[in-house]
Amino acid sequence: MTDTQTPQSRLPGTAVPLEPELDGVDAWWRAANYLSAGQIYLRDNPLLRRPLEPADVKARLLGHWGTTPGLNFIYAHLNRLINESGQQFLFITGPGHGGPANVANAWLEGTYSEIYSHVGLDEEGLRTLFKQFSYPGGVPSHAAPETPGSIHEGGELGYSLAHAYGAVFDNPDLIAATVIGDGEAETGPLAASWHSNSFLDPAVDGAVLPILHLNGYKIANPTVLARMPEAQLLKLLEGYGFHPHVVTVEDPAAVMAAHEDFAAALGTCLAEIRAIQEPYRTGSKLAVPADAPQAAATHERAQEHAPRWPMIVFRSPKGWTGPQTVDGKQVEGTWRAHQVPLSEVHENPEHLAQLEEWLQSYRPEELFDGAGRLRQEIAGLAPAGDARMSATPYANGGHLLRDLRLPAYADFAVETAQPGSERVSPMLNLGRYLAEIIRLNPENFRIFGPDETASNRLQEVYGVTDKVWQQRIEAVDEHLARSGRVMEVLSEHLCEGWLEGYLLTGRHGVFNCYEAFVHIVDSMFNQHAKWLKVSRELSWRQPIASLNYLLSSHVWQQDHNGFSHQDPGFIDHVVNKKADVIRVYLPPDANTLLAVAQHILGTRNRVNVVISGKQPAPVWLAPEEAKLHVKRGIGVWDFAGSEDTGPGAKPDPDVVMGCAGDVPTLETVAAAALLKEQLPELRIRVVNVVDLMRLQDSAEHPHGLSDRDFDTLFTQDRPVIFAYHGYPWLIHRLTYRRTNHGNLHVRGYKEEGTTTTPFDMAMLNQIDRFQLAIDVLDRVPSLGSTQAGFRQWLQDERERCRQYTRDEGQDPPFISGWTLEEAQRSTAD
Amino acid sequence: MTDTQTPQSRLPGTAVPLEPELDGVDAWWRAANYLSAGQIYLRDNPLLRRPLEPADVKARLLGHWGTTPGLNFIYAHLNRLINESGQQFLFITGPGHGGPANVANAWLEGTYSEIYSHVGLDEEGLRTLFKQFSYPGGVPSHAAPETPGSIHEGGELGYSLAHAYGAVFDNPDLIAATVIGDGEAETGPLAASWHSNSFLDPAVDGAVLPILHLNGYKIANPTVLARMPEAQLLKLLEGYGFHPHVVTVEDPAAVMAAHEDFAAALGTCLAEIRAIQEPYRTGSKLAVPADAPQAAATHERAQEHAPRWPMIVFRSPKGWTGPQTVDGKQVEGTWRAHQVPLSEVHENPEHLAQLEEWLQSYRPEELFDGAGRLRQEIAGLAPAGDARMSATPYANGGHLLRDLRLPAYADFAVETAQPGSERVSPMLNLGRYLAEIIRLNPENFRIFGPDETASNRLQEVYGVTDKVWQQRIEAVDEHLARSGRVMEVLSEHLCEGWLEGYLLTGRHGVFNCYEAFVHIVDSMFNQHAKWLKVSRELSWRQPIASLNYLLSSHVWQQDHNGFSHQDPGFIDHVVNKKADVIRVYLPPDANTLLAVAQHILGTRNRVNVVISGKQPAPVWLAPEEAKLHVKRGIGVWDFAGSEDTGPGAKPDPDVVMGCAGDVPTLETVAAAALLKEQLPELRIRVVNVVDLMRLQDSAEHPHGLSDRDFDTLFTQDRPVIFAYHGYPWLIHRLTYRRTNHGNLHVRGYKEEGTTTTPFDMAMLNQIDRFQLAIDVLDRVPSLGSTQAGFRQWLQDERERCRQYTRDEGQDPPFISGWTLEEAQRSTAD
Ligand SMILES: Cc1ncc(C[n+]2csc(CCOP(=O)(O)OP(=O)(O)O)c2C)c(N)n1
Ligand SMILES: Cc1ncc(C[n+]2csc(CCOP(=O)(O)OP(=O)(O)O)c2C)c(N)n1
Ligand SMILES: [Mg+2]
Ligand SMILES: [Mg+2]
Repeated sequence: MTDTQTPQSRLPGTAVPLEPELDGVDAWWRAANYLSAGQIYLRDNPLLRRPLEPADVKARLLGHWGTTPGLNFIYAHLNRLINESGQQFLFITGPGHGGPANVANAWLEGTYSEIYSHVGLDEEGLRTLFKQFSYPGGVPSHAAPETPGSIHEGGELGYSLAHAYGAVFDNPDLIAATVIGDGEAETGPLAASWHSNSFLDPAVDGAVLPILHLNGYKIANPTVLARMPEAQLLKLLEGYGFHPHVVTVEDPAAVMAAHEDFAAALGTCLAEIRAIQEPYRTGSKLAVPADAPQAAATHERAQEHAPRWPMIVFRSPKGWTGPQTVDGKQVEGTWRAHQVPLSEVHENPEHLAQLEEWLQSYRPEELFDGAGRLRQEIAGLAPAGDARMSATPYANGGHLLRDLRLPAYADFAVETAQPGSERVSPMLNLGRYLAEIIRLNPENFRIFGPDETASNRLQEVYGVTDKVWQQRIEAVDEHLARSGRVMEVLSEHLCEGWLEGYLLTGRHGVFNCYEAFVHIVDSMFNQHAKWLKVSRELSWRQPIASLNYLLSSHVWQQDHNGFSHQDPGFIDHVVNKKADVIRVYLPPDANTLLAVAQHILGTRNRVNVVISGKQPAPVWLAPEEAKLHVKRGIGVWDFAGSEDTGPGAKPDPDVVMGCAGDVPTLETVAAAALLKEQLPELRIRVVNVVDLMRLQDSAEHPHGLSDRDFDTLFTQDRPVIFAYHGYPWLIHRLTYRRTNHGNLHVRGYKEEGTTTTPFDMAMLNQIDRFQLAIDVLDRVPSLGSTQAGFRQWLQDERERCRQYTRDEGQDPPFISGWTLEEAQRSTAD
Repeated sequence: MTDTQTPQSRLPGTAVPLEPELDGVDAWWRAANYLSAGQIYLRDNPLLRRPLEPADVKARLLGHWGTTPGLNFIYAHLNRLINESGQQFLFITGPGHGGPANVANAWLEGTYSEIYSHVGLDEEGLRTLFKQFSYPGGVPSHAAPETPGSIHEGGELGYSLAHAYGAVFDNPDLIAATVIGDGEAETGPLAASWHSNSFLDPAVDGAVLPILHLNGYKIANPTVLARMPEAQLLKLLEGYGFHPHVVTVEDPAAVMAAHEDFAAALGTCLAEIRAIQEPYRTGSKLAVPADAPQAAATHERAQEHAPRWPMIVFRSPKGWTGPQTVDGKQVEGTWRAHQVPLSEVHENPEHLAQLEEWLQSYRPEELFDGAGRLRQEIAGLAPAGDARMSATPYANGGHLLRDLRLPAYADFAVETAQPGSERVSPMLNLGRYLAEIIRLNPENFRIFGPDETASNRLQEVYGVTDKVWQQRIEAVDEHLARSGRVMEVLSEHLCEGWLEGYLLTGRHGVFNCYEAFVHIVDSMFNQHAKWLKVSRELSWRQPIASLNYLLSSHVWQQDHNGFSHQDPGFIDHVVNKKADVIRVYLPPDANTLLAVAQHILGTRNRVNVVISGKQPAPVWLAPEEAKLHVKRGIGVWDFAGSEDTGPGAKPDPDVVMGCAGDVPTLETVAAAALLKEQLPELRIRVVNVVDLMRLQDSAEHPHGLSDRDFDTLFTQDRPVIFAYHGYPWLIHRLTYRRTNHGNLHVRGYKEEGTTTTPFDMAMLNQIDRFQLAIDVLDRVPSLGSTQAGFRQWLQDERERCRQYTRDEGQDPPFISGWTLEEAQRSTAD
């Protein structure tokens, strides 16, 4: 079935005679295949002690056979290698739909029963194991969180290789054996992932062993990689920087030849990996010193390229060892084997007979003893304890997790005499804090970003670390080195996938990204949030560090770019996921951002979304206040409002001005200042929201405010003008059950934008100070029509500002240089 | 700056002496570079007639210089080739941030002034051209819809190559010259796109000429492709199936050598493209007949592979011809040239002088005459009329768009004696209709899908067409051929990108996808919706066919898969975009799906999202009713409710049961039937929503219902139990302004799921018939506590159903086989 020459297809085997050992591998493989088919088909008669009857077969036949025997084959061989070499492996199942394989091997290794004691290591256990699979109230069909040894669900294809690299960063002793479906390989994220070698440091990182599972087909089609000329495929993989070892199963029946080839290839790969790593670790290849990037360029290693890591191409039949033909059509070795090769087993006696024959072909009697226990000779082939891939702590990363050492908040918070008197870039300041985190945690914290870490103003981290880069380094380069804590690649998919893999194996990290383009990983976020949701329900899964998004260059602050870069909708996407898992923070200034960062880096099993501007902006809150504000998540800002809260004060303000997000907060404070100047009697309450989930009902979200608290802040009946960072509807969605919702008027981004000034953007979306002040005039009943003149002035001011931008190409200085102090001074005059 | 050998870097030139011609190319390039730098910097003094002053320079310096000279270089050479060969080219700017280049060339070609008459072809025009760029009230910094000749905004990197292939499908006379940033090439979608050649039919499709713009850097980093060994890069590109021609600019000053090399490479590429196409078009390569897939396998061509298409690797300095060093640091040829190489031009006289020197280096006096007109010798180098890439109708696809010929709805609608008496798979039935569309429109309609077209049950289309496949075809393959109307690749990014390119160049299509995984293209959808929003505001952009998503295998109908496949959130994502652009349809049965399909295929400039199940399901509405229902978008279903609407009837029902989505509709109808049986007096109104935007306010969305209409349907004060396909909050968001919103109770997907039965999924999320009936009992005040017994029975039924799934592995037959007829029969008894 192959074409052209396959130069590496029959590798020189190792010197030792393999046969006896390989009999064991083959027995394991047969056992795993038997257990896999059993899971898909059987609800009873697990050992075929009596002739198979329709009643033994599940009512609904659900699962994916096609990929499974290949996964089992690889797994069996990895076990042999683990035993032989003592090497620690993590198994990543790209085609996660081959879940039966993962479960089967975990059972064979005993891990399954250790975790799930109701699934014993005997016939009764087997019956349970079979019946529960893809079954209501049972276990999922994929390599899900429920599956021991998995960090990768694999249902949504494309992320296996990125997860694998993330898992081995800073895990020098680990190899992630990563099975990649040839269909999966057509996806964008997977195609990008091959280049991860340009970012893998052989000194401090482990290795990834990609095993391209070239079974020729996906659901209903052949695959591109399987059908291109083999010479082209090899060029492609070499072009990706790998040394491919091809194992081709020409004849499905020649099983022992396949075992020999695969064992040899695997052995060669391990030897090559060790040969690459050794000089980096024994010091014969010097690491480039982090503090000397200039020197680095002259250094010999700077001229080197990433090592040529080995990989395996495993060309084997889809559905191997399953039914060859069904109803006269070829199944083994075709796409028809993808799911359930034999259907209608209840109604079709021929199919039933074929199923029995298929199951018997694994010779279960040779595999299990009379009590249904795996025979000792086979069970003994499992690696011991944590060396079992189903039991490795790397796949239950919370076990390995150490708390981050966090620097003192006070050392990095910005002192400020008075609200807004300092102007600081929140992201720049956070960069200092992150630098210190890196200094304190040199081995288990990384920052990931799609070529935007400096653009997002986190460049202070380069004072203590570099960007990882294994290709040539030139004299002109800055902050590039072989080792470092910052991972930059122009692929949001890779950033996300690497970070997920890093977190799932027990480390910490942050993904910094332009707000608009984080949508690129919407779907990856979904899958991770789902993973966490399920993991939280499994007592044996230890909590892992949260996935932290740091979104900047946001919708309100585009300069060089325009409409394509303006999209605050990631929040909306995120809040659909389980309330326990997700948090959204909109810190209004540098100190609150810092407090939020400190908080989230201590959390577990969550997804934290933090959105902050990068331009210098007023610091509203002094360090201690900011910390309290973040703790509360929401609060009244007396300095911004004009409520008389002294004795004899009226019970409620005339209007509440809510705000969430840095730019909306600035506009709200400025609007309130305008109103205070003109209408000193008007009682305005300014409420700032940092933790967006506070708006929700306490019944809906653990961070939600009680109705009582909400009513106290937003009143039961006063108009609320709410300026929000994102699409306005979300605020309604979060608050529609609140007493005062009928009086809530939200301004936000309404999908208007282009390349223009920040204030013009605010005006385009009617979230500017003048519009907010107009909104107040229009909604406070007691003002009646008294403020017609003021209202007109506000309208005119908008127009004047707009005209200024057209004439001068920038915002009027009284806008861009606005300070609360001056605004209040003019009020005092 | 290159390494190792660059085998193709100095290609044998064509036989003709190039020099005189290349002087023209160089002059064009200088003019384009001058105009580009002018756009970034100048607000006045456009021809440098007087010494440059700070006041001539814009206040904010915004734009991206780095990529621009390379784009201009390529553009100038393509023009030369167009003149020489008469070949039609479409220019796709992967690094769309190089917008100044596109605008500059459009102005040089005269197109800009033809479209935007206020930007004349003289000095005043130049002043306007410069000032407007990246300027408030001006034009965006990217290759936006406003930019003549562009179909690709390019702000979000990664989609250039996919757009290019989409553009040339079924456009045999077109070549899409596609500049790919070396940073862009790191993204997943771009990495996947190289394989598009496996799906390009040389007979009926045009060609793509990728030009990898290897300027070495992205924003702040070198690029992987630029820094890997060149031999590896060539292997990679050959592995992708290309024949790469490398043009390396070793010495930035050796401009004429670069021109020679590039011109030669371009000429060679065109010759290679024509050499590939010719035999397919003259009949010497026979197309595989669509109706003989078996025969195809034996056919000689089946054993062939995709042709080896040419491409160019253009290794040139980033920011070429710009300032070499600034403040002692190298800029040209580094990442420092990415945006604005010279900053603080107002304050720093040295920078100002350097800017002037830079601009003068293009010798504007040689390029423009005294009136600021482009000198005739240069202007004359532009191709004529539509051959200009800035004026090609391919980039304004609406010009080329022909209406689809749509088959008669009645011929495909399912006759049904009585609501729910037929069970039909809506998707299967739609497949028949799509097949007929394909038959009627063999050249301008395609179906795109990530290996899921059959899985989504559209396989009837294979009766009339095949899946396009240019790699080896084997005897076992079905429905694969060199030509066809179905595009299947395991990449949602490619499906989306191809379809977008296809639509933008004036054709029609559908993207069928699993509902959950369409999130993979969330961000691509964003960009397309933004493109449409802006295009609609430009009178010169002709409307294009809508982007149609057909989402199936949805959240409520997973069998082989589980939680990772359950996500109905794409709707939420979509509704954030401009109301004019987006529509969401949830047809409840086969006939409504058909009517929706017929409708959307006639629309323009929209994104239509259609979600439908694929399993056999009741047909509720007869053909004519279904058509009316879709026209209305919402309607009362008398057959399902129990309202007495005769004379003397009470004014309002006791409860409204709303539903949207096929499974929620089924559960609602079943719940109403249960209630009717037990409580014949209860007046239930069932309202089904097909067009989700009907729920919104008419002020918010053009499809929105007026308040009056909404109140009539949903009453002003009766409880409304609404069963919704997706996350329940969206229904609140759409209706929070409605009178009766306080009584609205929504059930939907609340992120609970796993591999289980359909009814168990409904129960897990409390959207099942029993729960809906309970909701009614709990919310109709007049029922008081009278129904305690019935309520308990409903609760118990839920438990019994759940237990049945645990015991039997499937839904109880009285659920899976439920029919309205029987339910009503039992009521009648
Ligand atoms: C992103 C994504 N798109 C589509 C699917 C639907 N799907 C499930 S399995 C499959 C084929 C996978 O083929 P391959 O990776 O070769 O796996 P194997 O042949 O080993 O089963 C597809 C398209 C998916 N799971 N993920
Ligand atoms: C998907 C995406 N991620 C990040 C960015 C931010 N960004 C803008 S330009 C750029 C670098 C582009 O480099 P390259 O493609 O090489 O273009 P060129 O060097 O020609 O400017 C980046 C990362 C983006 N535009 N799109
Ligand atoms: Mg496969
Ligand atoms: Mg570049």
